[in-house]
Amino acid sequence: MSDVQLSHARLPATLTIEVLDEFGDIHPQAIAAERALTVYLNKREIVTLMTLGADPEALVVGYLRNQGLLGSRRDLVAVHVDWDVEAAAVVTRRLPEDLEERLGQRTVTTGCGQGTVFGRLLDSIPKQTLPDTPLQQSVLYSLLENLGAHNETYKSAGAVHGCALCHQAEVLDFVEDVGRHNAVDTLAGRQWLGLAGDEERLADIFYTTGRLTSEMVLKVAQMGISVLVSRSGVTQKGVELAERFGVMLIARAKGRHFQAIRSGQRLILDAVPAKRPGDRLRART
Amino acid sequence: MSDVQLSHARLPATLTIEVLDEFGDIHPQAIAAERALTVYLNKREIVTLMTLGADPEALVVGYLRNQGLLGSRRDLVAVHVDWDVEAAAVVTRRLPEDLEERLGQRTVTTGCGQGTVFGRLLDSIPKQTLPDTPLQQSVLYSLLENLGAHNETYKSAGAVHGCALCHQAEVLDFVEDVGRHNAVDTLAGRQWLGLAGDEERLADIFYTTGRLTSEMVLKVAQMGISVLVSRSGVTQKGVELAERFGVMLIARAKGRHFQAIRSGQRLILDAVPAKRPGDRLRART
Repeated sequence: MSDVQLSHARLPATLTIEVLDEFGDIHPQAIAAERALTVYLNKREIVTLMTLGADPEALVVGYLRNQGLLGSRRDLVAVHVDWDVEAAAVVTRRLPEDLEERLGQRTVTTGCGQGTVFGRLLDSIPKQTLPDTPLQQSVLYSLLENLGAHNETYKSAGAVHGCALCHQAEVLDFVEDVGRHNAVDTLAGRQWLGLAGDEERLADIFYTTGRLTSEMVLKVAQMGISVLVSRSGVTQKGVELAERFGVMLIARAKGRHFQAIRSGQRLILDAVPAKRPGDRLRART
Repeated sequence: MSDVQLSHARLPATLTIEVLDEFGDIHPQAIAAERALTVYLNKREIVTLMTLGADPEALVVGYLRNQGLLGSRRDLVAVHVDWDVEAAAVVTRRLPEDLEERLGQRTVTTGCGQGTVFGRLLDSIPKQTLPDTPLQQSVLYSLLENLGAHNETYKSAGAVHGCALCHQAEVLDFVEDVGRHNAVDTLAGRQWLGLAGDEERLADIFYTTGRLTSEMVLKVAQMGISVLVSRSGVTQKGVELAERFGVMLIARAKGRHFQAIRSGQRLILDAVPAKRPGDRLRART
């Protein structure tokens, strides 16, 4: 993708403020950045995203791509982000024929950080049938351990969601943002732009710290991934879409615990832990 | 508001599915409902909201109201929700003159469940200057205890956010939804429709389980409330707007712990707890 002109307008993900705690002590606290970025596609205003600002070019490309507003990668000419005017200018050689129609309808999803899908969300369907990827419990546990090293911003500042593209227990790419949908779009954008590093190894598991709601399942299915792991819970529509698309949901995955939904024969229980008292008492997420 | 025709299309907030845990045991798990509701204002499609469906009429009215798409309450004729077609038909006698302009721009916020604000979010300003409401630490602690009784759906299913209008330690109204922004809008809608019960007692504290991001601070300020309490963390823009509008932020409020931001003289430390080991080790939210 060296032919696409990209600005590199990364900004620090956190800043430090002073807070007063319950003891009356003042101390420094890192907080997540949150910046407005208005996206212009061939000079037309599309949307304003509230983002951490850590990878804006990939976010904008991934957003437009996932909204079906960017067609072939060959058509993409440039992405220029200018924080002074909080704007991202995207130049493409060709716009989708149904642009007006797409921009006319919008669905506000449960998505943190990217609550809008142009067009009717639930009418969308994945471009491909998904593979019946199996998942070993031991691989899930290794993956959860590997993911622990990645959520930098969350550890210091909280108030962000993390998403990861994984190949079995290996984390291929990890992105955090104030909204989990920005994180998903940034991952997609980095892949599409060839910035995600090792492109040989195909992602077969998607991990998110956020909830498994309708649009999360849809986006993961559209990425061709059929295993979706989350630290959080699921919603009804998330489960419905997962069944329809053939996505295996692993919810509330923390430490050794998880809740697999409609996993059928795909989940291989090869690392069942010994039961301890209190194993059923779980914090909700 | 008995003159407004309202359907009462409440649906159960949770349903139960079977999950497989790490021990290979199958057991029932309550999950949050998530339903699509497309909003039509005088037959014009405005947006599709993903919601729990527990109070759809108030949600739709609160959403339109907070987007500036509904003017005077006298103009509101009817709100009819029909889940069979996943549609809410809102009839008003008058539409805002700048409707087209408002619908033309959208900001996608970090908001769970309502990620879109029509118009430029950060250009908006509260309609009123906010009161310098003081807050006693002891009142905060009592409020946090009282709130514990309210998050029904979260306790059973997780995957929802709760928001509350409070008068000092008293919870006036509490709403949960798959997105915290639906919860905020539903609270506003219930108030505006006169469904929130005791309207004499004015809310002076807003509580949310969600993060204190830009649009949460903006919405609370627009409700004329100057104390915003959250179990979660803050973002940069949330802090910026809180300063600009005079909203006192109390973040990470759990049990006895909290982090007050720019609280100045408004926070009265009348219940400082005894320090215990580990009081500084906090889970991020």
